Amino acid sequence: MTAQTDAFEALEALLGARFTRATADRNLHGQSESHFAPMPPDAVVYPQTTQEVSQIARICSQAGLPMIGWGAGTSLEGHAIAPRGGVTVDFNQMNKVLEIVPEDMVATLQPGITREALNTELRATGLFFPVDPGANASLGGMASTRASGTTAVRYGTMRANVLGLEVVLADGRIIRTGTRAPKSATGYDLTALFVGSEGTLGLITELTVKLHGQPEAIRAAVCAFETFEGAVNAVIATIQSGIPMARIEFVDRASAAYFNKATQAGWPDAPHLMLEFHGTDAGVAEQAQRFSEIATDFGGLGFRWAEKTEDRTALWAMRHNAYRSALQAYPGRDPITTDICVPISRLAEAVEETAAEIAASGVPGPIVGHVGDGNFHALLLPRTGDAVEWEKAQVLAANMAERALRLGGTVSGEHGIGMGKMKYMAREHGDGWAVMSAIKAALDPDGVMNPGKLVPGN
Amino acid sequence: MTAQTDAFEALEALLGARFTRATADRNLHGQSESHFAPMPPDAVVYPQTTQEVSQIARICSQAGLPMIGWGAGTSLEGHAIAPRGGVTVDFNQMNKVLEIVPEDMVATLQPGITREALNTELRATGLFFPVDPGANASLGGMASTRASGTTAVRYGTMRANVLGLEVVLADGRIIRTGTRAPKSATGYDLTALFVGSEGTLGLITELTVKLHGQPEAIRAAVCAFETFEGAVNAVIATIQSGIPMARIEFVDRASAAYFNKATQAGWPDAPHLMLEFHGTDAGVAEQAQRFSEIATDFGGLGFRWAEKTEDRTALWAMRHNAYRSALQAYPGRDPITTDICVPISRLAEAVEETAAEIAASGVPGPIVGHVGDGNFHALLLPRTGDAVEWEKAQVLAANMAERALRLGGTVSGEHGIGMGKMKYMAREHGDGWAVMSAIKAALDPDGVMNPGKLVPGN
Repeated sequence: MTAQTDAFEALEALLGARFTRATADRNLHGQSESHFAPMPPDAVVYPQTTQEVSQIARICSQAGLPMIGWGAGTSLEGHAIAPRGGVTVDFNQMNKVLEIVPEDMVATLQPGITREALNTELRATGLFFPVDPGANASLGGMASTRASGTTAVRYGTMRANVLGLEVVLADGRIIRTGTRAPKSATGYDLTALFVGSEGTLGLITELTVKLHGQPEAIRAAVCAFETFEGAVNAVIATIQSGIPMARIEFVDRASAAYFNKATQAGWPDAPHLMLEFHGTDAGVAEQAQRFSEIATDFGGLGFRWAEKTEDRTALWAMRHNAYRSALQAYPGRDPITTDICVPISRLAEAVEETAAEIAASGVPGPIVGHVGDGNFHALLLPRTGDAVEWEKAQVLAANMAERALRLGGTVSGEHGIGMGKMKYMAREHGDGWAVMSAIKAALDPDGVMNPGKLVPGN
Repeated sequence: MTAQTDAFEALEALLGARFTRATADRNLHGQSESHFAPMPPDAVVYPQTTQEVSQIARICSQAGLPMIGWGAGTSLEGHAIAPRGGVTVDFNQMNKVLEIVPEDMVATLQPGITREALNTELRATGLFFPVDPGANASLGGMASTRASGTTAVRYGTMRANVLGLEVVLADGRIIRTGTRAPKSATGYDLTALFVGSEGTLGLITELTVKLHGQPEAIRAAVCAFETFEGAVNAVIATIQSGIPMARIEFVDRASAAYFNKATQAGWPDAPHLMLEFHGTDAGVAEQAQRFSEIATDFGGLGFRWAEKTEDRTALWAMRHNAYRSALQAYPGRDPITTDICVPISRLAEAVEETAAEIAASGVPGPIVGHVGDGNFHALLLPRTGDAVEWEKAQVLAANMAERALRLGGTVSGEHGIGMGKMKYMAREHGDGWAVMSAIKAALDPDGVMNPGKLVPGN
């Protein structure tokens, strides 16, 4: 392939040692936190500037070489692996905060910065970036997958928190979307189009994000419930009552047991809600009081409060490690993550049906969820190499997706499509999927931007 | 034009008396609340179902006839007039609430329903739809122009409050975007793409919108300020302090005078802020206390509270009638509306420069604004038929747009592009405007959806 060879020579001339075809680099960028087999790219590049990304895009486009953006490699549906080979564009060396404007509560960032690094840099400003998917993902990746997580119930997902982008298109053109003004009505919402487009329309090279004031007061708590239904119904009542929860997370009995095993947390053998309240001192007290009345109504068994910062940090670290704790509890399993989201009125039904079906299957499947948004995950754990259990888990996952659609919801609340959920797109979107394809073809006519993901036939 | 004649026959066969070429109907749909000369369509249709809209689209597309959506006719940049003729699709007979789901705080609507009619239907539920552009616009129109208004500072614009759409594409295909779940990560955000697309990509035939709980407590107030700068700086300090204002509107000295003239409001001869607080009883009291401390720091001259519902209604009616009050104060003028939005840190500078330039021009130009969002309007009032004043007003408007861009903002906070602001699009979006055109061409290859608006060359 002369075109490819020429392209690699041009990339090497442009980037020197920041272009590599070394097996270790390629293999690293072929892996993912999904059940897909590794699919390495043909080369990896580490740009340092938008201009370099633009030139990379020109070179790759001319050679018809796929380009795959790479942030922290934490996506869950094989978004960043290379099923058609090509060049992985690793943003690890574009990881700076370019500007913080505290007066406007915005920051402009390079895409490779991670969520934790950003919040470390913000600490002195009294501001923070709230979107928290658990993993220490890169901001570019979080924008590309429309990430959300535990705080979206209060602060919104990446959709609500990205104000503008700089994007390199397939042909190397650089565009800017959005402004620093809080709102705009000047044409198609290109910011929203690129957020969640999973690198299939362009490469994000800069983001302007909204920041939020660190709350004056934060209180976190854990509340056990007599029953599963009680916990879920308490969530529904809380959201409907308008209490502005900062976090409200469901943890099933099995997950509580894994937490105990992993951290000696000493939780009772029961389903739990994990909660956080943000506001003024008086506001937080009022919210907590109102929530506790609801919890009591639904069989809540009392609160354990995490008052100190380190206690809160430990609490949420436990939640974020739920996946790992479950894997430790069940060694020798091939995990399958799921991620459905339903209207809050259908949440109890969705969780109950899912839990019952998992229990009947015999495959372990602890459930946790960002239930304030109607979003929950079952972590299905079929035995490695056990074809029967694997097939059962696949059926459970497919039935969850069907259930979400039947109840008016979506097959992915936050993990995205990547390669893993292409099979549900036609069912969820109908002709809307064809519209997505038409947009893809308009912006990337040669199909070089992250092919094999999100839209059909590329 | 045989194709056109055939199309009109087909539309009449489909719709009977709900297809019309009567001069009165055509003229009505050629007018707008803008300074553009009337541009009537060749025909007007009044569909009652999505299927009819789909058939209308098929018929018009085959004949190459433009289709222009029409809601309440309240847009301000000539969005719904017919510069290329064609068929205006008036949604007046598709104005029903299809479903309210209080548990999920969502409603599904036909596009012709107006904001006030919707809130009347919602009254018994304890919920309301917050987006309030002032005019009693249709929900379809509000979605199409990404409307916002006085409450966006708290509840967001139409971008944040539309959860899903049903859209008829140029070729008659019907798609659904979004779900009823609070969030989703399944592909391109088509909902956000159609919101603000001004009818250039398709016709919205159904909307699912977010509702909000009626606040337990509402307090509204007016506060005069010693100086213009004091009022604007109080807004900046309020937003930065994180007080969750439901409304925070700036009214300049001239507008206060028009209010007095129109309603005997008895306001002091000073710039004012108009405020509303939403929350629990305790929360509202706390917000009001914090705001009053800020106001005092910036030369606030004390509050007049509107405690009763009717007093509040009168207050906001006065604000919404600012445009009309100014016109009454200056009969024989041709109004030019403006609508810039800047980062909050640049708001004082933007308003001060604008006010100074207007004062120097000799053309009346009262300023009001949704200043919590950095968004404000000068209503420029050149004398009818006075070419010198008209030219001065055009220069003032153009300079406002340039100022917005220079300060990191946008040429339209909420009115949209239509025909009026096409001239600023290349400057604000650069190659992003070409991307919008590529999307337009992909979804509407024959350029029949609201041609002459928003994107070039159609």
